[in-house]
Amino acid sequence: MTYCVAMHLADGLVFVSDSRTNAGIDHIATFRKLFTFGTPGERLIVLQTAGNLATSQSVVNLLKQRLGSTLVNLDSVPTLYDATALVAETIREVVARDGAPLAGNTDLTCSFLVGGQIAGQPPALYSIYPQGNFIQATEDTPFLQLGESKYGKPILDRNLKHDTSLEEALRCALVSFDSTIRSNLSVGMPLDLLVYHTDSLILPAGYRVTEDDEYYEGVRRQWAAGLHEVLEKLPAPPAAYNV
Amino acid sequence: MTYCVAMHLADGLVFVSDSRTNAGIDHIATFRKLFTFGTPGERLIVLQTAGNLATSQSVVNLLKQRLGSTLVNLDSVPTLYDATALVAETIREVVARDGAPLAGNTDLTCSFLVGGQIAGQPPALYSIYPQGNFIQATEDTPFLQLGESKYGKPILDRNLKHDTSLEEALRCALVSFDSTIRSNLSVGMPLDLLVYHTDSLILPAGYRVTEDDEYYEGVRRQWAAGLHEVLEKLPAPPAAYNV
Repeated sequence: MTYCVAMHLADGLVFVSDSRTNAGIDHIATFRKLFTFGTPGERLIVLQTAGNLATSQSVVNLLKQRLGSTLVNLDSVPTLYDATALVAETIREVVARDGAPLAGNTDLTCSFLVGGQIAGQPPALYSIYPQGNFIQATEDTPFLQLGESKYGKPILDRNLKHDTSLEEALRCALVSFDSTIRSNLSVGMPLDLLVYHTDSLILPAGYRVTEDDEYYEGVRRQWAAGLHEVLEKLPAPPAAYNV
Repeated sequence: MTYCVAMHLADGLVFVSDSRTNAGIDHIATFRKLFTFGTPGERLIVLQTAGNLATSQSVVNLLKQRLGSTLVNLDSVPTLYDATALVAETIREVVARDGAPLAGNTDLTCSFLVGGQIAGQPPALYSIYPQGNFIQATEDTPFLQLGESKYGKPILDRNLKHDTSLEEALRCALVSFDSTIRSNLSVGMPLDLLVYHTDSLILPAGYRVTEDDEYYEGVRRQWAAGLHEVLEKLPAPPAAYNV
């Protein structure tokens, strides 16, 4: 499994991915699921992946290999929309190539989130379905998720608005990951995160949150304690509840 | 869809069910999913249902019809374990009866939670899978869920222990339902709840929480505000995070 979340907010973009992959519950490994393309001052394109690892790795490799070539590539596409269409097309290419010789029903599909900004255009964020079509995040729905999305969705539904600050959005994402990791063994540390400020047109270094990260550990502890306190302070049910 | 949760705690049992059923997203109705059997002073058996409504209604009807008959029934089974086995057997009976004439692949299965107490024995709580086998709640895992379980599970995972008081457990359940209802349209009000104190051997009246219930509305509001405050108070990420 996988859990990735990306947010398109008034001030920029936030991306967080876990790094656990599994084939069955006894074959677990760590693979990065967040990738950065672009040129400072001109474009930033961030990809996040879920689904079949062989397919998603091939897609990322082909997208990298073709940079600078005469083929349409992520450095030459004129818009984020076209970048997303190119990623979707590359997914279909790999699935067709690797799927053709397979008689069985191996699931080769994968999903991608594609976000970023190209100079002169506003930032954008898309989610590519396993079927290859895609949707875009909007002011009404400022976040998109991949993979094990349910455990960590209520905290995002409740607190994330288009005008939430990037810093608060990141904290919200970290809490969402904590809830998911607690409830699903197949989502695991470390986490890769990247925050992009609109119009900065830099390629942010991002950050890898490891098991022993002090800040994340503090957030987890403070969140658990705060939640418990809010629960304790809720009023007692009235007599009609027959408790 | 459905969401039901039941808890087996040191002081007793807590049951909460939603009441929304749907066949497709444009065929929605309200049906009670929490049923009480027993005799005051002798036994209480609570059933909660999810899955195919025709099957679960037939199962509950047959269990009721057979009370007082010469057939093994919920008033005559000697233990909660046997009560659960009887419910499972009745599910199989209905699925076999209604499934035999069907050529297609209609899913007739359903799931039940079975909890309660019989005089002279400790309380117990079981979950019957659609396949008919069942598991029991323990001190390590004091709650069981049916249906749309993921959105509301983190709050239970974080806060529910075997020695949590019945009142706090109920508040925790209500918050779990609020998170689920916000995120899944097919889980809906009203909620049916029932709290049972160990060794009381009464058949509690329970309570129906409707849309305009003042206490639930207050819990929802206070929870949302408290959560937001905890999030706001989390410390800012360190410089290494590159936010």
